Amino acid sequence: MIKIMMHGCCGHMGQVISELVEKDPEAEITVGVDIADKGNTSYPVYTDLSACQEDVDVVIDFSSAKAVDALLDYCGERKLPLVLCTTGLSEEQLARVEETAKKTAVLKSANMSLGINTLLKLIQEAARVLATAGFDMEIVERHHRLKLDAPSGTALALADSLNEAMGNEYKYVYDRSQKREMRSDKEIGISAVRGGTIVGEHEVIFAGPDEVIEFKHTAYSKAVFGKGAVEAAKFLAGKPAGRYDMADVIEG
Amino acid sequence: MIKIMMHGCCGHMGQVISELVEKDPEAEITVGVDIADKGNTSYPVYTDLSACQEDVDVVIDFSSAKAVDALLDYCGERKLPLVLCTTGLSEEQLARVEETAKKTAVLKSANMSLGINTLLKLIQEAARVLATAGFDMEIVERHHRLKLDAPSGTALALADSLNEAMGNEYKYVYDRSQKREMRSDKEIGISAVRGGTIVGEHEVIFAGPDEVIEFKHTAYSKAVFGKGAVEAAKFLAGKPAGRYDMADVIEG
Amino acid sequence: MIKIMMHGCCGHMGQVISELVEKDPEAEITVGVDIADKGNTSYPVYTDLSACQEDVDVVIDFSSAKAVDALLDYCGERKLPLVLCTTGLSEEQLARVEETAKKTAVLKSANMSLGINTLLKLIQEAARVLATAGFDMEIVERHHRLKLDAPSGTALALADSLNEAMGNEYKYVYDRSQKREMRSDKEIGISAVRGGTIVGEHEVIFAGPDEVIEFKHTAYSKAVFGKGAVEAAKFLAGKPAGRYDMADVIEG
Amino acid sequence: MIKIMMHGCCGHMGQVISELVEKDPEAEITVGVDIADKGNTSYPVYTDLSACQEDVDVVIDFSSAKAVDALLDYCGERKLPLVLCTTGLSEEQLARVEETAKKTAVLKSANMSLGINTLLKLIQEAARVLATAGFDMEIVERHHRLKLDAPSGTALALADSLNEAMGNEYKYVYDRSQKREMRSDKEIGISAVRGGTIVGEHEVIFAGPDEVIEFKHTAYSKAVFGKGAVEAAKFLAGKPAGRYDMADVIEG
Repeated sequence: MIKIMMHGCCGHMGQVISELVEKDPEAEITVGVDIADKGNTSYPVYTDLSACQEDVDVVIDFSSAKAVDALLDYCGERKLPLVLCTTGLSEEQLARVEETAKKTAVLKSANMSLGINTLLKLIQEAARVLATAGFDMEIVERHHRLKLDAPSGTALALADSLNEAMGNEYKYVYDRSQKREMRSDKEIGISAVRGGTIVGEHEVIFAGPDEVIEFKHTAYSKAVFGKGAVEAAKFLAGKPAGRYDMADVIEG
Repeated sequence: MIKIMMHGCCGHMGQVISELVEKDPEAEITVGVDIADKGNTSYPVYTDLSACQEDVDVVIDFSSAKAVDALLDYCGERKLPLVLCTTGLSEEQLARVEETAKKTAVLKSANMSLGINTLLKLIQEAARVLATAGFDMEIVERHHRLKLDAPSGTALALADSLNEAMGNEYKYVYDRSQKREMRSDKEIGISAVRGGTIVGEHEVIFAGPDEVIEFKHTAYSKAVFGKGAVEAAKFLAGKPAGRYDMADVIEG
Repeated sequence: MIKIMMHGCCGHMGQVISELVEKDPEAEITVGVDIADKGNTSYPVYTDLSACQEDVDVVIDFSSAKAVDALLDYCGERKLPLVLCTTGLSEEQLARVEETAKKTAVLKSANMSLGINTLLKLIQEAARVLATAGFDMEIVERHHRLKLDAPSGTALALADSLNEAMGNEYKYVYDRSQKREMRSDKEIGISAVRGGTIVGEHEVIFAGPDEVIEFKHTAYSKAVFGKGAVEAAKFLAGKPAGRYDMADVIEG
Repeated sequence: MIKIMMHGCCGHMGQVISELVEKDPEAEITVGVDIADKGNTSYPVYTDLSACQEDVDVVIDFSSAKAVDALLDYCGERKLPLVLCTTGLSEEQLARVEETAKKTAVLKSANMSLGINTLLKLIQEAARVLATAGFDMEIVERHHRLKLDAPSGTALALADSLNEAMGNEYKYVYDRSQKREMRSDKEIGISAVRGGTIVGEHEVIFAGPDEVIEFKHTAYSKAVFGKGAVEAAKFLAGKPAGRYDMADVIEG
């Protein structure tokens, strides 16, 4: 039985993951950390990470950017594997993640869902065939009306994946309304739709002469991200130091 | 048998319409006008409109903006009904269209397809129910890589249709990448995808709490625009002076 | 404040509705009925409907077909308006619904969501234009892997709506793999996709010469059905005897 | 310059390919064969294959099943590479294709488009990850109202591709309306939509817990099949005897 520390246990995703792990026969959350203990967990909660000396196999983090620095130190010192799901990290923090990965196993992905991570890989193969044959690449994402950033981090990760497969020669275009000219060969258009309570949809479009190929991912609840985090934790426990991502989990 | 003059008969759309009319038992093109006679028609062609004195029931125009002024004068003087399909007219020309419509029947629509014109009407009814209930409205259009303008005239017509149904209180948003804030209530996001040879797709999205309703139109060839023009010509022949659009044709 | 009796209050939809009403300033559930009181409500629960003498304005029912007969009698006798959401009623029960509607207001719809009910109306208008012009009509629905019936009741309601608009001349086709022949003019193909946890998607397709128009509804959670039921209850309270459906609620 | 014999040159696809090759600087059609010479080609046409002694590098065939036997003999005897695009071959003919492939290079694919052949490969990788993780697999195809067979050969090829990746344990389900039971784990549902002039759309759906991944291919004209045939011919010229398919062309 893999013992998990849930960092950010009282937030929305912390609760989603707690529910998922309860049904998982191979893992359990033995301790939580959150700056505000809301009493909504079935395991003990520390409001101060440094006070926690419990013995666990792996940490799942869904907290906030400002809590990440202390967590990286904590895991680095203890050689404790870390599944890092908090987004919006600064450049300095991203560098610190790399440093920490020299001391312990750190898994960080733009999107934790199995589906998106499968797509990230397959669209690279598609790009090598189709973009090479002259197909144009476009991305359309849809999210709920409250989302602040656009395009989504996942849309950018998909674009980066396409771009990497094609030698990083493409630029990203977010708006075509301000100029009157035909599309260039080396651009990836990225459109962001916002409305209602849409959890998250991403479409990667390859448009060629008289045919179009589309790859689409739809998330129906945030549980898909939690589920990926739990799978990642089970995978990461016991692994040597280094940087991992969801592609490693998928390939097993 | 309705007699049609095809203005712009040697261009791509002129040819598409010529083929469609050949199969139509109720209409025939008896004369064409084009500044360059390419010899690709089965009817006589005038390179100078003013020289043409043939007796016809209606004119279909798919020429270019600069040929429209003379055509409006010609039709106005002769009280000749006109299906005006050329786009990109200036403000002055649009005013002249209104003047001409005082003398003869003039039909002008942003998009000649039966499907789009049906949608233009239905999305207004949808907006009155759904936008009133708090659903957000968004439009995504897709066109081929050579298209110069974005968003398409049809996407803007769809947005105007939604806006009109809701009291013209909405503003249009083409780019969300430059600011970090949640969507406002009174905006219509419009995204333009460009790639390959896509003829034209338009999607109108109503996104509400836990449900989304979408209206989508896909054109598979430019023949859909020609077909609408022929139906319009058959409808317009014999009608009194005034401004008409495809909604009148649909309602019969 | 409208007082609601929740019939079937301890089931999944009963719970969804209880949560929605708690946030609604215009309505409250004052009493529940369920054969098994699970103790998951904040209001008193009767396990025997006949024992309940509480004074309420309207009943919402999300129970099971076998509990409906007694409920119809109960509401008929008391002239108590009833929002009837239980599906799978027998022919006899449907006749009984009509009888009850002579005594009190009864609202019954195949699908309670605002979006589907808006579509049911708009596709009739679309059919009158497009099917009359020779477009073919098809329906594709998607639901989760556990759903027993196929196609869904909502897909059939959409087909009936199309058919009614066209004079009920169409037959429904569920399988084209067993014969080798072209599609007939007067058929509506209905396809059912099953997989994962998909809550419910319905697509109505009008396919014509070189253009396709699609109407699509996606439900992201069962809350959309509960929300419609609550709106219906608020609408129905105080209405005279008769048969109502969600279209009446939408038109207000 | 690769010299091509076009077998079935006067039919629709023969004409499409003739137009494509005219614009191709690396290939030319030097001779055609068709039982009925319609005079619509710019190269000499034989109405009897056996009379044709022209020297060519490769044959493209888009004729009819009954013309294929003679063609296989002809190519086998002359060691002439053959791109075989005619569908609906009998079991005996398929065996004969294998025999011919011992003598010369024969390329045969269910669908000649670059996009579909890319998908055939990628969905196998997707199946290995997603179906293994418990996702359900479904296919929906759409074609024009005149198509006789359902589901399409391409839809079956996509299903076979999924099935092969998962050890051929799946059965195909074409109709769910006749039984009342939940979906089984080891089935692939295949739905066929028919209407209007839709050239061809194929969707492969992976539906899992709270997320769905879709792969979609849309053909906008039959030119995509012709284009693939021309690419295949250029690839196959000069290749040793054996069975090839479009995957070999894509991988170069």
